[in-house]
Amino acid sequence: MKIGAIEAGGTKFVCGIGDEHGQVAKSITFQTTTPEETLSHVHAFFQSEHIDGLGVGAFGPLELDRQSPLYGHITTTPKRHWQHFNLLGALKDEFSCDIYLDTDVNAAALGEASWGAAAGHQNCIYITVGTGIGAGLLVEGNLVHGLLHPEVGHMLVRRRAGDTFSGCCPYHQDCLEGLASGPAIQARWGEEASLLANNDAVWMLEAYYLGQALTNLILTVSPEKIILGGGVMQQAQLLPLIRREVQTFLAGYVEKRELGQTIDQYIVDPGLGQMAGLKGCLALVVRGSRSHSPASQ
Amino acid sequence: MKIGAIEAGGTKFVCGIGDEHGQVAKSITFQTTTPEETLSHVHAFFQSEHIDGLGVGAFGPLELDRQSPLYGHITTTPKRHWQHFNLLGALKDEFSCDIYLDTDVNAAALGEASWGAAAGHQNCIYITVGTGIGAGLLVEGNLVHGLLHPEVGHMLVRRRAGDTFSGCCPYHQDCLEGLASGPAIQARWGEEASLLANNDAVWMLEAYYLGQALTNLILTVSPEKIILGGGVMQQAQLLPLIRREVQTFLAGYVEKRELGQTIDQYIVDPGLGQMAGLKGCLALVVRGSRSHSPASQ
Repeated sequence: MKIGAIEAGGTKFVCGIGDEHGQVAKSITFQTTTPEETLSHVHAFFQSEHIDGLGVGAFGPLELDRQSPLYGHITTTPKRHWQHFNLLGALKDEFSCDIYLDTDVNAAALGEASWGAAAGHQNCIYITVGTGIGAGLLVEGNLVHGLLHPEVGHMLVRRRAGDTFSGCCPYHQDCLEGLASGPAIQARWGEEASLLANNDAVWMLEAYYLGQALTNLILTVSPEKIILGGGVMQQAQLLPLIRREVQTFLAGYVEKRELGQTIDQYIVDPGLGQMAGLKGCLALVVRGSRSHSPASQ
Repeated sequence: MKIGAIEAGGTKFVCGIGDEHGQVAKSITFQTTTPEETLSHVHAFFQSEHIDGLGVGAFGPLELDRQSPLYGHITTTPKRHWQHFNLLGALKDEFSCDIYLDTDVNAAALGEASWGAAAGHQNCIYITVGTGIGAGLLVEGNLVHGLLHPEVGHMLVRRRAGDTFSGCCPYHQDCLEGLASGPAIQARWGEEASLLANNDAVWMLEAYYLGQALTNLILTVSPEKIILGGGVMQQAQLLPLIRREVQTFLAGYVEKRELGQTIDQYIVDPGLGQMAGLKGCLALVVRGSRSHSPASQ
């Protein structure tokens, strides 16, 4: 099977050609600019390829209710050019194959559950911490949409005593994203996260907020594996600190080996590295074609 | 179909006989004491009944991993007599029919999705606020178990400025349950919740914490309906306050009618009233017998 994949992120797009085993034969990356310009790059990449299906993992908020007239539209994004853009419609105009659509983070969660760190599990969470904070959820074998789709980045967290940074979320100020995203780190400490590697206080505070969010996710959907990706997680010192915070917050309440002795195998890096999103788009096609439920019907 | 139902709560047990349409023909309620005494009442009730299946919704933490040797055991409960009690084993010794087991709150969520306020939805949350705080989650049509099962009552919430009550959770002090359960209300205000009906400050603070928890649940699993039951929710003034807090916390981020104009139909009382749990146990049998997956295999 020859599968097309588009990881449609708010900062960059990654397009690829791969197969049903998660192997990527070739890929291309370019910046997300206007919809017209960005999609012209997409079409150029796929022009001479005859793909059997296309998987798309897109930034959001994204309308995923098949009953809605806005199905497949990007809705209230702060990215002006993309507000209320009919992404699925634009793709259907160019691609005649079946198209399978989900959020970028749900795709990454499915990729990790198919061929990565959560292989064999029916419950996992993929969290990306970068320009924003987002999460994809696989629960009892299904990707979660519900009324909209998870927006975990905006979870309310308690402040650590002494943290006086007001937060940078335009909606909630000091929600998780407002306190712990890449831009929040930069705004609080006056430098980009990547330049703060040796400042322990930065990562201890970051781990406090992310550990708190993970604790609430554990208590809500009880995942079997939590995978942390995104630019901020490139700081290798952060993951062990997060694990410790989770254990402190849970205080022994959930008596499971995964939250004790084997927590190093429970809260982990992506098994697919930077490819979780793109391979996840391949997985959307593999899974969707099994149930014959393309978005493009 | 003649179905037996046991709502095995930490405070009281409710046993009933009903059918596959959620109709209850008769029921009995008694206090939860020791396992031996409590189960002797259960057996007396069902003795001369020939039921085709038994649905059990139990308090927890409850081991629901079918691969575990402790499947069907109540594990680390603070109720001393029930710690590490093999509930499923004890029931299997007495009942020859198929037994279907889940948490009491998952059963209630399924009951409401089958015949109550969430009928027709694949995503809903049932929350009980009483002696403890617990939640059952139906996500994309499945009851959530994951690694253990949801333990939403212990979610971490931010304190409202000026609330100096230390919290009463033995594990986390000031988690949601520690700040907003019935015992927390009593400890903070010095009187039982039911005697504080006219004290507005009590219910505004309560709504602040519950509204915050609901906000985090909405951002995590994006339910199509949230149902609030339990003793504390008997205070009719509380539900409208909670809806308002949810809107304040979300700050317009999730652009859905359900969180705006029609929030009165989104965050609601149980459609099955006090019968959500018991009818949910009937629903466990209806659903389980369709997939032929009894706990008692």
